[in-house]
Amino acid sequence: MRQFTVKVPCTSSNIGPGFDVVGLSLSLYLTLKVTIDSNQSNKSPILSYTGQGADEAPLDAYQNLTTRCALYVLRCAGISSFPVGISIKVHNEVPFGRGLGSSGAAVIAGILLGDALGNLKLSKERLLDHALMIERHPDNVTAALIGGFVGSYLLDLSPEDTTAKAVPLSEVLPEYPPDAGEQWGKDPPAPPRGIGHFIRFGWAPEIKVIAIIPHFEVSTAKARSALPDSYSKQDLVFNLQRLAVLTTALARSPPDVGLIFQAMQDRVHQPYRKHLIPGLPTILASVTPSSHPGLLGICLSGAGPTILALATENEQAIAKTITEEFKKESIECSIEYLHVTTEGAQVTEE
Amino acid sequence: MRQFTVKVPCTSSNIGPGFDVVGLSLSLYLTLKVTIDSNQSNKSPILSYTGQGADEAPLDAYQNLTTRCALYVLRCAGISSFPVGISIKVHNEVPFGRGLGSSGAAVIAGILLGDALGNLKLSKERLLDHALMIERHPDNVTAALIGGFVGSYLLDLSPEDTTAKAVPLSEVLPEYPPDAGEQWGKDPPAPPRGIGHFIRFGWAPEIKVIAIIPHFEVSTAKARSALPDSYSKQDLVFNLQRLAVLTTALARSPPDVGLIFQAMQDRVHQPYRKHLIPGLPTILASVTPSSHPGLLGICLSGAGPTILALATENEQAIAKTITEEFKKESIECSIEYLHVTTEGAQVTEE
Repeated sequence: MRQFTVKVPCTSSNIGPGFDVVGLSLSLYLTLKVTIDSNQSNKSPILSYTGQGADEAPLDAYQNLTTRCALYVLRCAGISSFPVGISIKVHNEVPFGRGLGSSGAAVIAGILLGDALGNLKLSKERLLDHALMIERHPDNVTAALIGGFVGSYLLDLSPEDTTAKAVPLSEVLPEYPPDAGEQWGKDPPAPPRGIGHFIRFGWAPEIKVIAIIPHFEVSTAKARSALPDSYSKQDLVFNLQRLAVLTTALARSPPDVGLIFQAMQDRVHQPYRKHLIPGLPTILASVTPSSHPGLLGICLSGAGPTILALATENEQAIAKTITEEFKKESIECSIEYLHVTTEGAQVTEE
Repeated sequence: MRQFTVKVPCTSSNIGPGFDVVGLSLSLYLTLKVTIDSNQSNKSPILSYTGQGADEAPLDAYQNLTTRCALYVLRCAGISSFPVGISIKVHNEVPFGRGLGSSGAAVIAGILLGDALGNLKLSKERLLDHALMIERHPDNVTAALIGGFVGSYLLDLSPEDTTAKAVPLSEVLPEYPPDAGEQWGKDPPAPPRGIGHFIRFGWAPEIKVIAIIPHFEVSTAKARSALPDSYSKQDLVFNLQRLAVLTTALARSPPDVGLIFQAMQDRVHQPYRKHLIPGLPTILASVTPSSHPGLLGICLSGAGPTILALATENEQAIAKTITEEFKKESIECSIEYLHVTTEGAQVTEE
């Protein structure tokens, strides 16, 4: 009998100007408790699921995103099926569709699950290659895997190569039909090496994170389709200038509010997502370091609707103002006071 | 009699993906030796000029960029003219029109000259405000003033404000006609406070800088007009991802070539400036860490034509390959082996 735990932090991407670039791992977790019992004879993993999304997440291992990712990793290594007698208890603290990287966490949990089940001992870089075959936006998955405040880029893969970009997602991780069994989706395309590159920035210990989570979902696909296909040179330079300053400014202790608040402004995604998130324009314009001392900056978490506020103090007052703005739009919110996790996803054998 | 020296480093901007964002101060200098002799009665500064650009730089203090900038600072402080008996010996190591920040150095030298002549003791931030009224691209002037590897952003000044953006450059620093005297251009618009914000990144001590300077000029205006007005979201994200990684990667010791070389790729300006700089496409494509161990990355310096190579070793071999590529295009080059200056512009009283 083998037992191990896979624990993956939630993540917030973008942090203002860093669209599709930066991710921050935060202290809400997706946890898998895995048991492989040689006295059991089940060939398909037995899944249970508690916490956030428990009534939505599929419990069929050939439908569930995490177990599909695990199977992808196993099959890339030439192992065609799950071990016999496996059961997985999922507990999830990460709300679905709120911009806190729930699907990125599910992918990373699956990649680590596959690595652990196959005893593959893949490097972080190689684990990331597998994750980036499934999720082509590196920000959330990289931060969930590595932990902390992370910047990443995807290798520029030329179209003539047999590379990740040339492989449709459906061939990597096919959608399993209801009658899918263990033979479905065998021999998937293995990831090329070094698809994603990353660096971990510093994070000043004074900076706390408040997540204000409205009680409605924004689909990432819908939030992406709200964005234009092209941008003016002015808007491009606006974001480049702020992102360059922000990644280093958030590492400096004590944090410089005069530098950070302006450096968290964005012209690439937030202005286009306002209509998806009622109250956002008012919140971004009215919650400032002048009105709320201690506030460093405010942004949409990922594609939203969660609002992330960075602050050195007065967290409760900041959260109260933001929830009241949402209340004016008849939107209820949850508040989470979080910290940046120094560790990324972990596997612990018991 | 008062004597002082103003010494300003040259700068390289962009460093690949950081268009209009990052600047690097390098060890070629523009130096002013200033004498104020109360035994002399000249009301207009006596200028002399040696070194790079000596046959181009105007010696009339109401035409010369540096002295015009000094006069702007003095007049913003209510001092209408230069002190009587002033003479300025300029020595310049920074080639004109090669992408090494010669005009940015001239502006910063003038700002510091004005501050010193008026005994104004302006803060770095306030000096920068004055510089940004004259030069609206913050990268070179900020690096020349602050020193080291610097990222900066301009404050988003809304059009209804009476701010820098609303003031045409010609009102800040009028072009003086041939008969201009000390009354010309009085009462200029003073800079708003906090136009520019900046942060100094780290720089790994192993990283050396090689500048290969072709013997022809590229006008910044022409190099800017070669750029498109808008960019695809893909190209925007490409540069955002690389710039975020690059600023921190260049600070890490030892430098990670696998991370840095790709992070110095650019899709915002270099691809559009190829036709202005024969040989550039071949150089960017063929000089790599595989062909030249020790090379970390290669880019256009500013608007070019200078090529900047970052390397931990093999500087001579790298420079040789690049000069040979230019030679194939019948272009002669100078080579400068430079270091990143830890100090920015300095004023030293004698």
